[in-house]
Amino acid sequence: MSDCIFCKIVSGDIPSYKIYDDDRVFAFLDIKPLSKGHTLVLPKEHFENVFDIPEDLYAYMFEVAKNISANIKEKYQPEGIFINQNNGEMAGQSVLHIHIHVKPIYNESQKHKEEDKGMQLSTEEMEKICNDLKIA
Amino acid sequence: MSDCIFCKIVSGDIPSYKIYDDDRVFAFLDIKPLSKGHTLVLPKEHFENVFDIPEDLYAYMFEVAKNISANIKEKYQPEGIFINQNNGEMAGQSVLHIHIHVKPIYNESQKHKEEDKGMQLSTEEMEKICNDLKIA
Repeated sequence: MSDCIFCKIVSGDIPSYKIYDDDRVFAFLDIKPLSKGHTLVLPKEHFENVFDIPEDLYAYMFEVAKNISANIKEKYQPEGIFINQNNGEMAGQSVLHIHIHVKPIYNESQKHKEEDKGMQLSTEEMEKICNDLKIA
Repeated sequence: MSDCIFCKIVSGDIPSYKIYDDDRVFAFLDIKPLSKGHTLVLPKEHFENVFDIPEDLYAYMFEVAKNISANIKEKYQPEGIFINQNNGEMAGQSVLHIHIHVKPIYNESQKHKEEDKGMQLSTEEMEKICNDLKIA
């Protein structure tokens, strides 16, 4: 969709800290991460939510999220990983292009921080994380 | 695992409000729901988390969660659906048998209520919801 920020990120019209990219799915670092390595996973094709995305693509997004989680665990050893997928603005979906949040949890203060607004990291910090977590 | 409460629910040794059941995946109503229709989806075989479950089974759990979400939407018309899968106690995983939460969101007060302890509904209310949402 021409006015969708995530479609523009997928097409490269808006730059992002890309973590993973294949023919169907794209993943990049959340620009306001709730924790170090907070990643968004989304289909390249525009679907709004769990109700309109094809079943196999929905399942495949989570396969990718699983692989990204394993890679984050290996590189950064978080205590846990919180994976969520919000459907509808009232459920916390801020961009209406379906996406999965993969959030490493390193300490108690990050537990259940859904209302947190996220951190602002420097370009250097974001590039370092992106290089650490990028899946070739 | 013999001491796992979710394995006992899958085997029927502990009763549950069953929503869905096939050869690989089981779903039942959360006994302390955060909202009406809050459902847990899990593999019948015991795996602890995203790191040790096979990729295809992880993906399939989310296919089932998607179908359950569509059914909840049809029956109860929530404003949104929040889907989360917590790995590790620090990420909010209370039972160490991997599971997905499917949480319908009906109003603002249910938004981002991760720390909520959930409601205690009567047996009659739980049975009614189970009958409404059961997928044959």
